[in-house]
Amino acid sequence: MDSSLQAVLMEQGREARAAARYLATASTTVKNGALMAMADELEAHVPELLEANQMDLDNGRKQGLSSALLERLALNEARVKDMAQGLREIAALPDPVGEVLSMWRRPNGLEVGRIRTPIGVIGIIYESRPNVTADAAGLCLKAGNAILLRGGEEALNSNRAIARIIAGAAARCGIPEGAIQLVDSEEREAAVIMMKMNDCLDVLIPRGGKGLKQAVMENATVPYIMTGMGNCHVYVDEYADLEKAYPIVFNAKVQRPSVCNAAETLLVHAAVAEAFLPSMIKELEQAGVEIRACERSRAVVPRVKAAVPEDWDTEYLDLILAVKIVDDLEEAIQHINAHGTGHSEAIVSQDYSNVRRFMAAVDAAAVYANASTRFTDGNVFGFGAEMGISTQKLHARGPMGLQELTTTKFVVYGDGHVR
Amino acid sequence: MDSSLQAVLMEQGREARAAARYLATASTTVKNGALMAMADELEAHVPELLEANQMDLDNGRKQGLSSALLERLALNEARVKDMAQGLREIAALPDPVGEVLSMWRRPNGLEVGRIRTPIGVIGIIYESRPNVTADAAGLCLKAGNAILLRGGEEALNSNRAIARIIAGAAARCGIPEGAIQLVDSEEREAAVIMMKMNDCLDVLIPRGGKGLKQAVMENATVPYIMTGMGNCHVYVDEYADLEKAYPIVFNAKVQRPSVCNAAETLLVHAAVAEAFLPSMIKELEQAGVEIRACERSRAVVPRVKAAVPEDWDTEYLDLILAVKIVDDLEEAIQHINAHGTGHSEAIVSQDYSNVRRFMAAVDAAAVYANASTRFTDGNVFGFGAEMGISTQKLHARGPMGLQELTTTKFVVYGDGHVR
Repeated sequence: MDSSLQAVLMEQGREARAAARYLATASTTVKNGALMAMADELEAHVPELLEANQMDLDNGRKQGLSSALLERLALNEARVKDMAQGLREIAALPDPVGEVLSMWRRPNGLEVGRIRTPIGVIGIIYESRPNVTADAAGLCLKAGNAILLRGGEEALNSNRAIARIIAGAAARCGIPEGAIQLVDSEEREAAVIMMKMNDCLDVLIPRGGKGLKQAVMENATVPYIMTGMGNCHVYVDEYADLEKAYPIVFNAKVQRPSVCNAAETLLVHAAVAEAFLPSMIKELEQAGVEIRACERSRAVVPRVKAAVPEDWDTEYLDLILAVKIVDDLEEAIQHINAHGTGHSEAIVSQDYSNVRRFMAAVDAAAVYANASTRFTDGNVFGFGAEMGISTQKLHARGPMGLQELTTTKFVVYGDGHVR
Repeated sequence: MDSSLQAVLMEQGREARAAARYLATASTTVKNGALMAMADELEAHVPELLEANQMDLDNGRKQGLSSALLERLALNEARVKDMAQGLREIAALPDPVGEVLSMWRRPNGLEVGRIRTPIGVIGIIYESRPNVTADAAGLCLKAGNAILLRGGEEALNSNRAIARIIAGAAARCGIPEGAIQLVDSEEREAAVIMMKMNDCLDVLIPRGGKGLKQAVMENATVPYIMTGMGNCHVYVDEYADLEKAYPIVFNAKVQRPSVCNAAETLLVHAAVAEAFLPSMIKELEQAGVEIRACERSRAVVPRVKAAVPEDWDTEYLDLILAVKIVDDLEEAIQHINAHGTGHSEAIVSQDYSNVRRFMAAVDAAAVYANASTRFTDGNVFGFGAEMGISTQKLHARGPMGLQELTTTKFVVYGDGHVR
C-alpha cells in the first residue's frame, strides 16, 4: 500500500463523512440551489472544460486509445450543456429525503414510522465518460449523500475540471467542500484503497468491466452495488409473432451493441427455427453481426460459425450474437437462469401462459414481453437520471435513481413508554 | 480448506439453488400448507426434540458453558410449542412474493411494473438458541427462498432434530428437499466456506457477536446483511421530563441487558445532571448495575467508577452503564453518531424542536422520542417474526421481516416495442 496515497484518501473520507452529516439534514431549497448553480457554472466554463478535455484526448491518442474510447471521452459544448441540463433535471425531481414511507400506531400507543434518509458517503469507481462526474455528484447531492468520485485515469484532467467547478459552485451555496470530492490520483491503487475504507464509505458503486468487478469481489470490505454486467437474451417462442420478433431481436442486438442491455444470445424454439432463423440471420449479417450458432441452428443456416460453450457466458458488447435452438419454454428459462447475469431478458410470444411463466420464472432485474431488452434504463423507465444499473439482488435491482441512493430509519414516538 | 467439507457444502448449495428455482413460483397455498405441517410435526415430536436437546445440554455442561448460555440453549415443551406457533403466525402473514409495488405506462405505450420476488438462497450463521432454526426456515420459505442454516456447534443435536423434522414435513407438502438444509458440521471452517459460496448463496445473514462480525468482514465475498450490533444510547435532554426519564433509562438498561437493543451509555445534559443523576444512579445500582462515568458525572456522584475511552465504544450486553455529561443537544448527537453502532437511540425531552432535531440528525436504524430503546423488534413493531435486526444501511435497516427477505424485478409489457 502507498501510505501517503492512503493518508490522502482517509483525509478525503473524513471530510466526506463530516459533509454527509451536514447534508443529511440540509433543506431541499439549499440542495436544489446548489444543483442549479452547478449547472450554471458548468455552462459558464465551457472553454476551460474543453481545454482540460483536450489534454485527455491528446494523452489518449498518444497512448493509442481506440476511436470508440476517444469518442466516449470527448467533450464539446453540446455535451457540457447536456451535463448542465441533467443537473437541472435532478433539481426538478422530488427530494427523496424525509419521505414518510408508512406510519402506524401500536396497541401500546407508540407511533412507529419509516422514513427515507440519505445513506451517507457514496464512493463511485467509473471509466471514460466525464459526464458521469456531474451526473453522479448531482444525484448523490440531491439524495443527501457526500460522494467520492474515482474516474478513469484517461479522463483525469476533464474530471478534475468538472469536479472543481461543481464543488466550487455547491460550496458557494452553502454545501460543505467535502460533499463532492474527486480522488485525484492516477494510481490504480487508489481504487483498491477505496474498497477498504469502511469507516468513511457507506457504499461503493463500481461501474466498469469484468476486471473492475473481479477486483471489487476480491478486495472490497465496503458494501457495494455491482452494476452493468449484461449477458442478455431474447427468446423467440413457438407462439411468437415473427413480425414482432424480427425488429425486437434486431434492435436488441444492433441499435447500440456496446451497452449492457444489448442482447448477446438469441434463443429460438425448435418449432419456429426454420421459419425464423434464415431471414433473421440474414438481416443481422447485413448489419455486420457475426453469428455463433449451436449445431442445430447450423443445420438450418449452415454457413454460420459454430458456437463454443464459452459463447453462452460471454457479454460481447459488440456486433456478435450467439444463437441456440431450444425444445421448449422451460429449456429457454433454464438456459437464461444458468447463463444470464440477471440484467434484462425478453420473450417474444403471443401465448398468454408462456408469457406469464417467463415473466415469473426468469430471475433478472428486468423481464420483457414482446419488447427489446434495450429499454432497461432509468430515463426510459421514467426515473430521470440513473446512477447505473444494478445486477445484484440486495438493496437495488435494475436502474438506480434517487431512491436507491437512500436508506430508511424507523422513528418511534412515545410518552414515557417502557417495555 | 477442508476439501471434503467444501464439496459437501457446494452440493448442498446446488440443491438449495435448484429448490429456490422451484420456490420462486410456488403458490402461497403450497407454502402455507408446508408451514402448518412443519408446526404440527414439531409438536408431534416433542420427546425426540427434548432428547436431542438433552445431548446438547449435557455436552454444554461438560464444556463449562455458562448458565446463561445453557438457558438459551434449553428446549422444553413450551418452547417447542412457541416454535410451532411462530410458524403458524408466519403462515398467516400475507405472501410478499408477487406484490406489485407500482405499475405505470410510458409515453411509448410500454407498461412497466415493479414486482416483489424472492432473493433466492439465503445463508444464516447463528448461535445458541435452537428456535432460530425454525423461525429462519419459516420466514425464508414464506418469502420463497431456500435456506442454508449454520447454527452453533453447541446446539448441533437440537438443530439437526428440528431441521430434519421441518424439512421432512415441508417435503411431504411438495417443497423440494433442498429448500431447508442444515450445515451439519462441527467445523468452524464450514462458516468460512459459506462466506465464499457466491454461486450458491445470494445473501448471508450473520447473527452473532464481534468475532463473527469480524470473520464476515474479512472473509465474505457473498453479499451479507450485518445484524445486531447495538451500542445504544439514551440522551436525557435539558428539557426532559425527569419522571419519564427514570423509567425509560432503567428499562433500557435493566429489563434485558443481554440483548442488542439494551442501552449501554447514558448521556445527560449538564443543566439537569445534578437533579437527575444521583437518584438515577442510585436506582440503577440497586438493580445491580455497575456505573462507569465521565469526570464531570463523578463530580456529581463521586463514588462511581471512572470511565475510560473504550467505554464509549463498548457493547457490554451486561449490567454495566457508561454515563457522560454533555453541554448541549449537538454534543449528544455528535457523541452518538461517533460512537453508536447505528442500532437504537433515544432522546428524553419535552422540547419540540430538540426532539425534531434528534430524530433527524441521529444516524441509526431506530430513533426514539420519550421511549425505551428496548422496543426495536419485529414483533413489537408489528411485522411478526423477524430474521434479525440489520445495523447496516444497504437493503435492510432495523428489524428484518418477510419484505426484507425479498428483492424486486421490473416487468415490462410491450407489443413489438423497439428503441
